[in-house]
Amino acid sequence: MEIPNKQIIFRDYIEGSPKETDMILNVGKISLKIPPKSSPSSGGAVLVKNLYLSCDPYLRGRMRNFHESYIPPFSPGSVIVGFGVSKVVDSDNENFKIGDFVTGITGWEEYSLIHKTELLRKIQSDNIPLSYHLGLLGMPGFTAYAGFYEVCFPKKGEFVFISAASGAVGQLVGQLAKLHGCYVVGSAGTSQKVHLLKNKFGFDDAFNYKEEPNIDAALKRCFPQGIDIYFDNVGGEMLDAVLLNMRTHGRIAVCGMVSQQSLSYAEGLKNVFMLIPKRVKMQGFIQSDYQHLFPQFLEHIIGNYKQGKIVYIEDMNEGLENAPSALVGLFSGKNVGKQVVRVAHS
Amino acid sequence: MEIPNKQIIFRDYIEGSPKETDMILNVGKISLKIPPKSSPSSGGAVLVKNLYLSCDPYLRGRMRNFHESYIPPFSPGSVIVGFGVSKVVDSDNENFKIGDFVTGITGWEEYSLIHKTELLRKIQSDNIPLSYHLGLLGMPGFTAYAGFYEVCFPKKGEFVFISAASGAVGQLVGQLAKLHGCYVVGSAGTSQKVHLLKNKFGFDDAFNYKEEPNIDAALKRCFPQGIDIYFDNVGGEMLDAVLLNMRTHGRIAVCGMVSQQSLSYAEGLKNVFMLIPKRVKMQGFIQSDYQHLFPQFLEHIIGNYKQGKIVYIEDMNEGLENAPSALVGLFSGKNVGKQVVRVAHS
Repeated sequence: MEIPNKQIIFRDYIEGSPKETDMILNVGKISLKIPPKSSPSSGGAVLVKNLYLSCDPYLRGRMRNFHESYIPPFSPGSVIVGFGVSKVVDSDNENFKIGDFVTGITGWEEYSLIHKTELLRKIQSDNIPLSYHLGLLGMPGFTAYAGFYEVCFPKKGEFVFISAASGAVGQLVGQLAKLHGCYVVGSAGTSQKVHLLKNKFGFDDAFNYKEEPNIDAALKRCFPQGIDIYFDNVGGEMLDAVLLNMRTHGRIAVCGMVSQQSLSYAEGLKNVFMLIPKRVKMQGFIQSDYQHLFPQFLEHIIGNYKQGKIVYIEDMNEGLENAPSALVGLFSGKNVGKQVVRVAHS
Repeated sequence: MEIPNKQIIFRDYIEGSPKETDMILNVGKISLKIPPKSSPSSGGAVLVKNLYLSCDPYLRGRMRNFHESYIPPFSPGSVIVGFGVSKVVDSDNENFKIGDFVTGITGWEEYSLIHKTELLRKIQSDNIPLSYHLGLLGMPGFTAYAGFYEVCFPKKGEFVFISAASGAVGQLVGQLAKLHGCYVVGSAGTSQKVHLLKNKFGFDDAFNYKEEPNIDAALKRCFPQGIDIYFDNVGGEMLDAVLLNMRTHGRIAVCGMVSQQSLSYAEGLKNVFMLIPKRVKMQGFIQSDYQHLFPQFLEHIIGNYKQGKIVYIEDMNEGLENAPSALVGLFSGKNVGKQVVRVAHS
């Protein structure tokens, strides 16, 4: 007995940012029972109903015909895969029972048959919204945690700047920095986001980079004494301006595939030489290199969240059919907070 | 009793690379006896006869009207100062006796009255050429040592690339990397220098970047498996090409003021985004931050030198009046090895 299964198909390799037409809504079919095991010795599959899907900038990297990255491109014609929160509806795997909520890599479709169960994690029941496992408690949150503590090595009282600061990663970096005793400034692309940074996330200051005729001047206004830590989510012109404003022994964490826009940054970075007089360390990183810290990350964030010391904002789109526009919106900054798509309520 | 004292005067702030006319030969006067102490409580001065002066790329930084660096610009009309090897001819300082050989910051002139004696170090008598205290055992050698061990964190078997590899710093980085068990390739700007790299310094391979139509292709030919460590002495186009060829968790030490040419690198760096997928650390550094390691540096290098495991090549110009052309020559790669000027034989 098969039922219809709506899916979002990756059409073909792209250049630049994705468009809605790069993804196609398709209706496949799926059985809600796992087919009999072909190989009894292998770890069993699970069949899940997808509840929430995560829109992340790194997905653009997988839509390009570029094989030098840490993760291969999607195959044209295949279902898009990414982080999700799902409910187990059938299981051949002793680690997952029917009714369990799981998070990990799943398909952009209503139901997914998942063989790579090592990429799934069972969600322990608590009072935190399920979708937060795609943001605050998921890959973006862990990116913020690993990048801030393990790449930036923050010290109390240091001056921290964050670009794309209201995004899935930035909003948590800023709050962690405040909890650490740093002075924190963020940039964002709308006055609404700037308002959130100052009034919701507790940043000391924030500015709308689209309204600043001169980014260097904006940084000098916000940091007359210079920047110790820059958590870079965008690359390009912003990074180039920050390089002129770093303090001695400063650190720059280069994060996130949004910054692959620097591929198309016509000017190129002109100020990298400033690394020398200021002895700055600039480091690219990927959260998955720090997986051993994931348990302490969860403990730290959940503890602070339950004490009301950390908040998190999501931008929730309803319906699988709206997933393409939600993903596309990331690259023009349409989302306010972590972009999630709700596929089903339960 | 005063005697004539030839001096090289810094004319005025420059842009771009220095020209000979940016420096003026002047004949001043100096007494060979230190004037009576004005303040008996302060550390006493020494009067030295300068034997060797060091031409280093960082001097260009001091000739520009740029105050954001770690060291201030020269004052127009003043004598150029830099590293030198000198002989004490009079002393009011108990740490230095007449006849001692010292190295440290002195003037580009025949005789210098030095008040900042904390920047002088007495040379212990050994069988190493005095001028080597400006190169192998001086600031450039220590730059190689601190940068290679403290910034690059080399591991045996790693793939190391060095630009300006036959220069004052590069030639030692390459030999340290070979002693460490690395695979080492260098680039230089003449076939003579490439020959030296392969046959004198023991590099595994080398290329003349001026004869390579495509730097990226040259790097891929020399490093089919990619680069773990890049010791960057030049910045600009070379650095941009290296960024495309780094291995996962690679390290780039960004060194030397030659790379301030990147100020005028019209294209800008386009490949910094590659720091992310390869998780590369790129760090600017200055040797003076590692002064606590200087004694172990001397011990390590002198030991290897005396065993014949390290060699060093100098480019020696004769006469103070030829110091300007020697300095200017650095920026077109005219020097072969460490550029030194002999002011006097003893």
